[in-house]
Amino acid sequence: MPYFDHNATTLLSPVAQEAWLKAQAEVWQNASSPHRAGVRVGLRLQAAREKVALVMGCKPERVVFTGGATEATNAIMQHLSERWGETAKIAVSVTEHPCMWGAVGSYCESSQVVSLPANRGGQVVMERVDEALADGAKVVVVMAANNETGVVQPWEKIAAKCQAAGAEMVCDASQWLGKLPAHGLGEAGWVVGTAHKLGGPKGVGFMLRPAAENGLVMRRGGGQEAGQRGGTEDFPGIAAMVAALLEAEQSKVLHESEKLRTREAFEQEMTRRLVGVNVVAGPMDRLWNTVSLVMPHGDNTRWVTRLDKRQVEVSTGSACASGKAAPSHVLAAMGYSADEIRRTIRVSAGWETTPTQWLELANALVAVAAELKPADNVVSP
Amino acid sequence: MPYFDHNATTLLSPVAQEAWLKAQAEVWQNASSPHRAGVRVGLRLQAAREKVALVMGCKPERVVFTGGATEATNAIMQHLSERWGETAKIAVSVTEHPCMWGAVGSYCESSQVVSLPANRGGQVVMERVDEALADGAKVVVVMAANNETGVVQPWEKIAAKCQAAGAEMVCDASQWLGKLPAHGLGEAGWVVGTAHKLGGPKGVGFMLRPAAENGLVMRRGGGQEAGQRGGTEDFPGIAAMVAALLEAEQSKVLHESEKLRTREAFEQEMTRRLVGVNVVAGPMDRLWNTVSLVMPHGDNTRWVTRLDKRQVEVSTGSACASGKAAPSHVLAAMGYSADEIRRTIRVSAGWETTPTQWLELANALVAVAAELKPADNVVSP
Repeated sequence: MPYFDHNATTLLSPVAQEAWLKAQAEVWQNASSPHRAGVRVGLRLQAAREKVALVMGCKPERVVFTGGATEATNAIMQHLSERWGETAKIAVSVTEHPCMWGAVGSYCESSQVVSLPANRGGQVVMERVDEALADGAKVVVVMAANNETGVVQPWEKIAAKCQAAGAEMVCDASQWLGKLPAHGLGEAGWVVGTAHKLGGPKGVGFMLRPAAENGLVMRRGGGQEAGQRGGTEDFPGIAAMVAALLEAEQSKVLHESEKLRTREAFEQEMTRRLVGVNVVAGPMDRLWNTVSLVMPHGDNTRWVTRLDKRQVEVSTGSACASGKAAPSHVLAAMGYSADEIRRTIRVSAGWETTPTQWLELANALVAVAAELKPADNVVSP
Repeated sequence: MPYFDHNATTLLSPVAQEAWLKAQAEVWQNASSPHRAGVRVGLRLQAAREKVALVMGCKPERVVFTGGATEATNAIMQHLSERWGETAKIAVSVTEHPCMWGAVGSYCESSQVVSLPANRGGQVVMERVDEALADGAKVVVVMAANNETGVVQPWEKIAAKCQAAGAEMVCDASQWLGKLPAHGLGEAGWVVGTAHKLGGPKGVGFMLRPAAENGLVMRRGGGQEAGQRGGTEDFPGIAAMVAALLEAEQSKVLHESEKLRTREAFEQEMTRRLVGVNVVAGPMDRLWNTVSLVMPHGDNTRWVTRLDKRQVEVSTGSACASGKAAPSHVLAAMGYSADEIRRTIRVSAGWETTPTQWLELANALVAVAAELKPADNVVSP
């Protein structure tokens, strides 16, 4: 069954599963235990930290292992709001993931939050970043790549601007990591990643803190993670995540351009065969795996259901636990109408997705278009 | 190798591993995804919640899946301090785990915290609980069983007293669950459990919130866990935890009295063979797996090292990530001297520990006693 919902979560990579099972059999003890088996877990944990640091291009002490991206965004925003106080300006890109906006809403005063708008292509408006920094913003929050549209943000430039201005950057790289090279992300100060988007298990992730940051305490307990995050370390989960990350960096991201061509071929095929279909942020630099499609007609929930019956799994947008999907704030920020947003589906492939599966997806979309409306906008192949 | 450090962490139970692997193969999608595979994960998650509720004796909606005990204690104390304000009295048993005291220290004003003393047997002094409640304490924090000594607290009585007084009880049941029947814990209001102490994986746990509690938000994100904890649910981890918990409840806790006799035989053997050894809280009701031993001589770190060389793994006390073990606050609260505390080791067995392994432990202890000091307190067997 073609699974086109990789931005929601990925199947566990075989190398990750192998690392997890090996750790559960051999390195399962408590890293804080005083016997040699415990010490060995601590050493392996440090080795895992060094591998992440190597991939990210930063010092190992900046790596903090977490339970995932939502934990990290909440902890970072809590920490930064306490550090900078309730009058400091915090500039947040409007297209951030709900777990970032939720954290901002929880811990920052609405009066201190500057919303950074997006252009029609979904990229943050750079002039507004400059303005916020010139106005003395202490924190700038811009993700690496968007979960709904795949649009890549100019995070390298923003990291440089923040460094020059003495501001802190928070970069949610959850959708970037494992798809594109991580190199350079270490420049971004605070960086958030999660294992289950890159072939690792759920419930584990990592973040980078800035090199100069010494006061972070996410939770208190047994003093783990250099006092930054109490709680017994999930070494098997961490080992699995690191295995998946290294596999992606060492053997997968090299094939990015090939995968990009496959996605582009699909987009051309769709545009040719289905009149009125619109690729969101079509001309922009986007993740090789993600296509957000405004369909010519039909509610996106109906599209998802009809495709599902044809064994094709796509999404309406960001995974949403509310039961009832709220209209996408990302597409709204890009200027799409409520009607267009209701017709938008998200397609997100994986490394294992074949050109044949992309074609099956295209065929299924054309077939469903005809089902949902006896349409004059379907062109025979 | 006899592993006597189960209170630090347990080996993953085979049923837990099987459940995890099955979920990673079949139920790995995102519970928030709109397609049927996602919906199926959500249904399985709800079934897991109902199983936990059945074991704990509470309604399913009180169960919140977490990343472990430290996350839960931090979230609960943050929530309760916000709810009750900084003048409300919060009574905390002095023998709580560092992750509870760390959370109390982070989120409560020192002026509002009432420390509940322990008697020589390690149990909370009930008169002081009564006093705190009579003084209008809004929250009473008493664990179910202690991680260092195994001492069982009168949590059922305290839960009843709290209910009568209209106070909230917080009960860390991390060391109780999987060792003794969970039945009745649902009466305790806030309850904390973690998978890796009961044969489940690390990085996953659960808590109960009181039935009347509607305002809990541990972290904001995609609205998961009824809005109480944002972040993609780790269903494979949860499935593994629930499998381990059910296995413990259905087939292990029945053997408690047999295991208790084995532990008692070990204690008698030690007392007979090693003059001057002292079982902490010897006469008290303690977990069947835990013995805290004040050795007649020698620093506990030396004991751990010497035993480790004999392939016997024990601990100095609570797992401590500070590198340098701090003296036990639990033993100090029970009236043990600094010198006694330095000589104390913790032994914690598992369900799979055999009487032969207990005997091996006794033999190793006697041998190390002779090594550490050419002693006149070793009696030939």
